[in-house]
Amino acid sequence: MKKGILIVVSGFSGSGKGTLMHALLEKYDNYALSVSATTRQPRAGEVEGKHYFFKSQEEFEKMIAQDELIEYARYVNHYYGTPRAYVEKQLNSGKDVILEIEIQGALKVKQKFPETLLLFVTPPDAATLERRLVGRGTESAEVIKSRMLRAAEEADGMGAYDYLIINDDIERCRDEVHQIIQSEHCRCIRNGEFMGQITAELKENLKGE
Amino acid sequence: MKKGILIVVSGFSGSGKGTLMHALLEKYDNYALSVSATTRQPRAGEVEGKHYFFKSQEEFEKMIAQDELIEYARYVNHYYGTPRAYVEKQLNSGKDVILEIEIQGALKVKQKFPETLLLFVTPPDAATLERRLVGRGTESAEVIKSRMLRAAEEADGMGAYDYLIINDDIERCRDEVHQIIQSEHCRCIRNGEFMGQITAELKENLKGE
Repeated sequence: MKKGILIVVSGFSGSGKGTLMHALLEKYDNYALSVSATTRQPRAGEVEGKHYFFKSQEEFEKMIAQDELIEYARYVNHYYGTPRAYVEKQLNSGKDVILEIEIQGALKVKQKFPETLLLFVTPPDAATLERRLVGRGTESAEVIKSRMLRAAEEADGMGAYDYLIINDDIERCRDEVHQIIQSEHCRCIRNGEFMGQITAELKENLKGE
Repeated sequence: MKKGILIVVSGFSGSGKGTLMHALLEKYDNYALSVSATTRQPRAGEVEGKHYFFKSQEEFEKMIAQDELIEYARYVNHYYGTPRAYVEKQLNSGKDVILEIEIQGALKVKQKFPETLLLFVTPPDAATLERRLVGRGTESAEVIKSRMLRAAEEADGMGAYDYLIINDDIERCRDEVHQIIQSEHCRCIRNGEFMGQITAELKENLKGE
């Protein structure tokens, strides 16, 4: 069983990355979404082990101390993190595992696991991003302004990613992301075992002559 | 018009890379095969500018001196090389350009143009390679032996390539190569212009607020 690829997906708020990932998982079988651990309270309808692994602060800090998290961050007095055990189990079963996290976390994961694939989702232009945020109709002008500000800051980090997904059409992008990940499976650095095997066979063959 | 990607394809003799490239060009429109320059005499049916650019030794050495070749090598008293002008014309017109050259040349091209994509075509195992070489029925045992020896040497260079194409089925591989190249177009390093543009828009937008 070939090991899966760890994929980190980031993108501007309003880039449509959440919708894109759901479309990907709906159409293709070989992906698993990572499940985060958090110390915040479950909301109505949230299921332990599906939406989150809910932890007490003490449990979470123990996970940090024992290096059981691939990355973690603290927002508004709550911890959020990616449990290593769940991700590794999925990868070992051959699934490509997707983490949806922001830039700082993405770079930490890449540092720890250099073979991680970093995808950045962006709308085709800034006007489209603003239009989408406004179009949601759920955000105040204040919130939209802060999201646009954050996007302008995050833009400087795009270059550190491996691939850029320009989200102009959700179905086209869903298939593009799938093809990018499948193509990555053909990278030489991900096929060390095969290369070692055929090299050994070819050299063995010579001895037999 | 977005610039095309320069792609170098190498592989063991008997890997089927020639057949694979022809299948790729037959099915998809956006590729161009590079045309080599050579000092050897044209064979029956070979067309200037299609199969080769035929040059005198003096002309070829002038091309070397004027850095008009991306790479070149000398085999059996004849020069073979890749004219830069033809490749750049195709790339600038948006075509992805394919060079079929061996490992030494491939590494030289990558050194000169780091954004070159290196593909290595291999059979699924050494036994398949030998079976294909024997199956051609055109090669003496001596030649087959020397090809297998060369493959064993070349195997050590595989790891320097970007992607490994395991040629178990020509149609599957043709589509895989196409998807790999198309995915490469989404690499951040190949989308500097887009990233610069949207970053500028986002920062400009803030000023307007």
